[in-house]
Amino acid sequence: MCHHVKKLMYTVNIGEPDVRFGNMLLEQFGGANGELAAAMQYTIQGWNCIDDLGRRDLLLDIGTEELSHLEVVGALIRMHLAPLKTNREAAEADPLITIAGGGGVALFDSMGNPWTATYLKITGEMDVDLRSNIAAEARAKIVYERLIDHTDDQGSIDALQFLMTREITHMKAFQAALESIEKPQFSIGLLKPTPGIVDEYFNGSTGDGDEGDTDMRGSWTTSHGLHVVDPKMDAPGGGLSVQTINGKINGEERGKQDEAQKATTSPGNEAIGKKSSGKVKGNGKAAAKRAL
Amino acid sequence: MCHHVKKLMYTVNIGEPDVRFGNMLLEQFGGANGELAAAMQYTIQGWNCIDDLGRRDLLLDIGTEELSHLEVVGALIRMHLAPLKTNREAAEADPLITIAGGGGVALFDSMGNPWTATYLKITGEMDVDLRSNIAAEARAKIVYERLIDHTDDQGSIDALQFLMTREITHMKAFQAALESIEKPQFSIGLLKPTPGIVDEYFNGSTGDGDEGDTDMRGSWTTSHGLHVVDPKMDAPGGGLSVQTINGKINGEERGKQDEAQKATTSPGNEAIGKKSSGKVKGNGKAAAKRAL
Amino acid sequence: MCHHVKKLMYTVNIGEPDVRFGNMLLEQFGGANGELAAAMQYTIQGWNCIDDLGRRDLLLDIGTEELSHLEVVGALIRMHLAPLKTNREAAEADPLITIAGGGGVALFDSMGNPWTATYLKITGEMDVDLRSNIAAEARAKIVYERLIDHTDDQGSIDALQFLMTREITHMKAFQAALESIEKPQFSIGLLKPTPGIVDEYFNGSTGDGDEGDTDMRGSWTTSHGLHVVDPKMDAPGGGLSVQTINGKINGEERGKQDEAQKATTSPGNEAIGKKSSGKVKGNGKAAAKRAL
Amino acid sequence: MCHHVKKLMYTVNIGEPDVRFGNMLLEQFGGANGELAAAMQYTIQGWNCIDDLGRRDLLLDIGTEELSHLEVVGALIRMHLAPLKTNREAAEADPLITIAGGGGVALFDSMGNPWTATYLKITGEMDVDLRSNIAAEARAKIVYERLIDHTDDQGSIDALQFLMTREITHMKAFQAALESIEKPQFSIGLLKPTPGIVDEYFNGSTGDGDEGDTDMRGSWTTSHGLHVVDPKMDAPGGGLSVQTINGKINGEERGKQDEAQKATTSPGNEAIGKKSSGKVKGNGKAAAKRAL
Amino acid sequence: MCHHVKKLMYTVNIGEPDVRFGNMLLEQFGGANGELAAAMQYTIQGWNCIDDLGRRDLLLDIGTEELSHLEVVGALIRMHLAPLKTNREAAEADPLITIAGGGGVALFDSMGNPWTATYLKITGEMDVDLRSNIAAEARAKIVYERLIDHTDDQGSIDALQFLMTREITHMKAFQAALESIEKPQFSIGLLKPTPGIVDEYFNGSTGDGDEGDTDMRGSWTTSHGLHVVDPKMDAPGGGLSVQTINGKINGEERGKQDEAQKATTSPGNEAIGKKSSGKVKGNGKAAAKRAL
Amino acid sequence: MCHHVKKLMYTVNIGEPDVRFGNMLLEQFGGANGELAAAMQYTIQGWNCIDDLGRRDLLLDIGTEELSHLEVVGALIRMHLAPLKTNREAAEADPLITIAGGGGVALFDSMGNPWTATYLKITGEMDVDLRSNIAAEARAKIVYERLIDHTDDQGSIDALQFLMTREITHMKAFQAALESIEKPQFSIGLLKPTPGIVDEYFNGSTGDGDEGDTDMRGSWTTSHGLHVVDPKMDAPGGGLSVQTINGKINGEERGKQDEAQKATTSPGNEAIGKKSSGKVKGNGKAAAKRAL
Repeated sequence: MCHHVKKLMYTVNIGEPDVRFGNMLLEQFGGANGELAAAMQYTIQGWNCIDDLGRRDLLLDIGTEELSHLEVVGALIRMHLAPLKTNREAAEADPLITIAGGGGVALFDSMGNPWTATYLKITGEMDVDLRSNIAAEARAKIVYERLIDHTDDQGSIDALQFLMTREITHMKAFQAALESIEKPQFSIGLLKPTPGIVDEYFNGSTGDGDEGDTDMRGSWTTSHGLHVVDPKMDAPGGGLSVQTINGKINGEERGKQDEAQKATTSPGNEAIGKKSSGKVKGNGKAAAKRAL
Repeated sequence: MCHHVKKLMYTVNIGEPDVRFGNMLLEQFGGANGELAAAMQYTIQGWNCIDDLGRRDLLLDIGTEELSHLEVVGALIRMHLAPLKTNREAAEADPLITIAGGGGVALFDSMGNPWTATYLKITGEMDVDLRSNIAAEARAKIVYERLIDHTDDQGSIDALQFLMTREITHMKAFQAALESIEKPQFSIGLLKPTPGIVDEYFNGSTGDGDEGDTDMRGSWTTSHGLHVVDPKMDAPGGGLSVQTINGKINGEERGKQDEAQKATTSPGNEAIGKKSSGKVKGNGKAAAKRAL
Repeated sequence: MCHHVKKLMYTVNIGEPDVRFGNMLLEQFGGANGELAAAMQYTIQGWNCIDDLGRRDLLLDIGTEELSHLEVVGALIRMHLAPLKTNREAAEADPLITIAGGGGVALFDSMGNPWTATYLKITGEMDVDLRSNIAAEARAKIVYERLIDHTDDQGSIDALQFLMTREITHMKAFQAALESIEKPQFSIGLLKPTPGIVDEYFNGSTGDGDEGDTDMRGSWTTSHGLHVVDPKMDAPGGGLSVQTINGKINGEERGKQDEAQKATTSPGNEAIGKKSSGKVKGNGKAAAKRAL
Repeated sequence: MCHHVKKLMYTVNIGEPDVRFGNMLLEQFGGANGELAAAMQYTIQGWNCIDDLGRRDLLLDIGTEELSHLEVVGALIRMHLAPLKTNREAAEADPLITIAGGGGVALFDSMGNPWTATYLKITGEMDVDLRSNIAAEARAKIVYERLIDHTDDQGSIDALQFLMTREITHMKAFQAALESIEKPQFSIGLLKPTPGIVDEYFNGSTGDGDEGDTDMRGSWTTSHGLHVVDPKMDAPGGGLSVQTINGKINGEERGKQDEAQKATTSPGNEAIGKKSSGKVKGNGKAAAKRAL
Repeated sequence: MCHHVKKLMYTVNIGEPDVRFGNMLLEQFGGANGELAAAMQYTIQGWNCIDDLGRRDLLLDIGTEELSHLEVVGALIRMHLAPLKTNREAAEADPLITIAGGGGVALFDSMGNPWTATYLKITGEMDVDLRSNIAAEARAKIVYERLIDHTDDQGSIDALQFLMTREITHMKAFQAALESIEKPQFSIGLLKPTPGIVDEYFNGSTGDGDEGDTDMRGSWTTSHGLHVVDPKMDAPGGGLSVQTINGKINGEERGKQDEAQKATTSPGNEAIGKKSSGKVKGNGKAAAKRAL
Repeated sequence: MCHHVKKLMYTVNIGEPDVRFGNMLLEQFGGANGELAAAMQYTIQGWNCIDDLGRRDLLLDIGTEELSHLEVVGALIRMHLAPLKTNREAAEADPLITIAGGGGVALFDSMGNPWTATYLKITGEMDVDLRSNIAAEARAKIVYERLIDHTDDQGSIDALQFLMTREITHMKAFQAALESIEKPQFSIGLLKPTPGIVDEYFNGSTGDGDEGDTDMRGSWTTSHGLHVVDPKMDAPGGGLSVQTINGKINGEERGKQDEAQKATTSPGNEAIGKKSSGKVKGNGKAAAKRAL
């Protein structure tokens, strides 16, 4: 159950409105890494989590805070976009919000894309979701940093600094929650990866020029048991194929060029309407093979 | 530059097609955590990364492999969906693919949503992107595990086990690449969080019942310097407000109920067309003449 | 600022899970007329409304309640979808939620469409928004009624009856708020409609058969000053054209058939690359007219 | 059946093209409250309505007129966007339409969002749909008013004034059609709301400051039988919970922290591939309980 | 299986970055007719095509090349957008890419729309798909031409000229592949069109003014056996109706105005909750007819 | 200007409703290749085309007819979906339309995707658009054929046969209109492709196995002047690179691994808030180079 307190979590005062900056701020309101995305991701993860009440509480605590952040960002944007209501040139900074929305904040990003639930990453597997959340907080932090870099208004900077700080707080909490599960670092779910194959680093992009196109090695090709496997591009059927033949469905025959296509166009097979065509039978009974 | 080898990275042979399972497999072809999403996320991160040639190579190696995986998953799906072409009941498992797509694999998920670039997480900040990639691999791993849980076809299981294994390989490589940057664990970008506030864990969701609704503590409320801050819901203007007043834009006045609304409807102010209203009224007050 | 209480606004107990019904319930969670849509529409309207503090409070009161409803619906769905986690046939009721989401509730509708902010109707004009809200509540009410019609589980019916009831409560409050503005019924904004034309009911769809295709009259063709205007389909250039000529931009000439097209393909005008083409000049300078 | 008359419903003549204004006008062509949305909403409501032939006629009359409006708005936009074809700076007003569309009008809004059927509100319940239509006309009216406020071109103003006027005409007709059904004001569908609960106005957003954050009362908290119910935030499990316990599915047990999670990661339970995992059985047979 | 070579298919060198042009170039990266759309359309058509190995090879050859083109366009865009990273005014050319994406190329078009698989046209019918591909290449060609028209940077022009040229190459190959099937020109699939009706050109848009609104004839009204059929707008129930009555479902009765609606609102039929309503029975048993 | 005649263009009578088939039919109502897509594509192409009045008339004639088709398909679907209103099992065929739409037809496809303008292909270049239209008609024809294959209801087959026939009619007309432009077959727009390169068929997908993975030749590698160019995968920096070096922006230096990344995380450079960071200056003035 939700309760709203008619006070912002962080006071927002700004000097001169900057409509282009207000437009940029929409990234954190209706954007892919914004506060609504964070609020919904954590809150819904929490609602689904009924067998781990401690981490459920964590998810609900932070999900709720992100909703309060949404309100703070919204207040900041509303102030910066205020000139849209009375100034034609300002309106061009965001015609959608001016004409359709009357100049207020709305769930769009800086290019007008409507917020969509495809932004969310929710799997219902606690340790996986915590990794998604840690990454989400890191993204939100860098976005706030970039926004701070694009304004000189001190009131805006103060509010953004507060919001940016909280992302690090959340990152710490999610990291602690992940560590406390005490799973091995690369263990996800129940099924084990196949030994051997799991340690092969495939060198799928190759080159040997001197303009940044030479193959490079790093700890990521040798750590955690990994070793490099190179493609055999000069061998017949080369590349990084793990097995030596292509796949098939039981009894499948590969058609022969031209004949297959022409079969569908033989005038003798054509029919008006459905009367004489070899057709798909309804109701799931053994279907006549279509001459296709 | 891309080159295609006419051989699957992993041979796919299946026994009996299972159209409902084929439909589920679409999650890894055109779905949010599927192979195209992985391929595009890493490859584009790599193309943008021109000042870190080692990790660029890593991103291109793995992005390329994911494209090869897309082909393997596609082959698997094509085989399982084959009955859509000739059987009405089978067709009901995915009418979109049957009627519009002719029964072949396409860039939709199991519920028919078209693939969208909103699935991608790309910030252009290397350590942030690596965290997004680690989380993406963890998600892909658990999705493959769930798919394996939903079939008994050994050929399908073998191919999915291969693909699932490779996600762990990639997770290892991205983790190694993150570690090798040697940034402090909670340092993102250049700007530091505000001391003090960064350590406050806000208890935004409260309760004290015995049905899982009591507040719980865990390492995530005390680790990495964190400590709990409780809301003051019984205080005037309570909650977790960090400051004591709400925000305002310079010179902004809060309107009074009713008058504001009625101002816009006063018959005396109404006009036919634009003849006598040469401007937008702002906030019920005399609006600045717009810069038209 | 938001606060979460770890207790549902309405207790949800169900008997036997019904996965297909759980899928239908998603309409009120992540669907077009669902609780998140209502919560976001009213809350954001409220945040934008700073010159009418009374109705702002109304919008925030109801917006907050809708968030609590979202949680109740979510709990109901989670329970009905529980079998997705362990049963293959159940999983087919919603493969997206099973495979990608681990069987939990998520922001999709019953056909898997992700929630999108395009569902929202927010104009920033109080009386217009109240009309949108009244309509939204009416839609939500009828959707709950249909859901009740599709289940026999008493616990589910009780919860849905509560939620359905609240929509009527909100409808009453929004209606009262609209009435209290005391605007004339058909007065929107400041600009008056053109007298005469505003009273013409255009009979744009005509017929005279006996299968429901005869023109019909009702109070909607005669009330509020309206009267019917019929199209003149048998006159030259007939129909319901208000003026007698088509429009033009100053100095615009309508091209002549074929010549216009052929002009773009005359071999003499073709060029390699950009070298000799009559091209658009960059940088906004007086551009050469393109032969198009 | 549709017939097109090669003449605009309203003649459109403009003076000097204004590309930024042309871009804004797209809101009424391919935007959320634009003419296509209106045309499709009413027309499809009409096509579905076979048991109320009078109101079906109304819906088809107005739906058809909106299509004619779409053509008028399209002509207006085409004229204002004409400079996109020959001028680089103009092209920046809408690069999507310039580069992909060749400078013509298209089904996008002012920020380039493609038109989507999620804009439509169609429930198949006549009185509900009429409320949606009244709100839609009110929104369209205010959008036209804002557009008129953003131009000084008299030809454009004339055309927009005509279109704006017609929205009021339609609003009148839909209102008359709603009134003629003679349903009680808050009666939707067949099921009655629960007495008592239906009259409780929940005060979900509270405050007592002097910056617009104090609770306010209005006719909306007392009219139509309503009275205010305040939350008990200082009571254990406080808020606006209607019942005293949280919900459960039959026999559901809430898991205990940590144990639940760790169960999925016990090394002894891990397995290679699917061989020894407690797994979900295919084909909907009694599924083994997964250790999840 | 895919292999990446760390070298561009075409060298991209540019002079001065032009951020607005970089934004326009996004049309060919993440836009509707861009390189990813082409790559995915042809590649997936190829993967599905197992009974025509020659044309499968064609589709994979060209699909692969389009991926290489995507990389070239991406490099070009990255260079033109470079100033987004350090310049506020430049950032306004694409705030989404600046703030969320760190200034790199991403899968959006010039107005920020995320790439979506709805751009693709894949039917699984070879000759149909080849027609879609020919059209796709023609669209891509004209888009490249327009882009060349919007820049003066020689390096950019060279790269775009290369990419534009290749679209013609592909158009040739797809055309040859279509011709080699040797189907009659208007033969699609197996079912024949109805003789007579197939040759009727319906004159659905009529007029007789002198402003471009007079009916015109062309070879398209007389070639390939076509002849014009005019609508009878002045006849009762006129137009271009092919038959003389409207349709019905077996036993369907068209309702009568008002009565139908009022039936759903008769107070006597109303009920609290589900107790006494004529309701839909669950589980697919013979359902009681709802009084609707 | 549009006029509606209250009679279907083709009478629709069906026998027994088939809800699953009704769901499939949605592909031609709100689907990617459906009647609304055709109507909008041609009509908007026509509205934009003011310099070729003959083909404008063609586009409006056919665009208008497609709207009439939309109505016919809608009537057919409404009849087949009728059981959704009263039967729970039927409702499961399309829960979105049942619960949200009341069982009527709506602008979704068979998997519930809302219609989107991204389905449309409009470039404003007549010959290109005609190619897109020819392909669109071919797709619509095959979709109708597949629908006919999935039903045994004679009334449905008759209506679908009519609609399918008309697609061939339109294909003929568009083809005639394209031919009458008399452009050379591979001439698009004004700019010529680069000689030499335009004739090179790149063999981008290679192989030599015996399971359908051997390179194949066809007329598409030799017609219209084409000849095959093979990749040099065994050469250093091999593949199909047209030039020998990678691209660069003027003065761009490729960073060196690790140093670049570490530079952004040097503790000495970190700062609280924006106070001491090397930041981007606002307002487009010469921006300080960010340490990125």
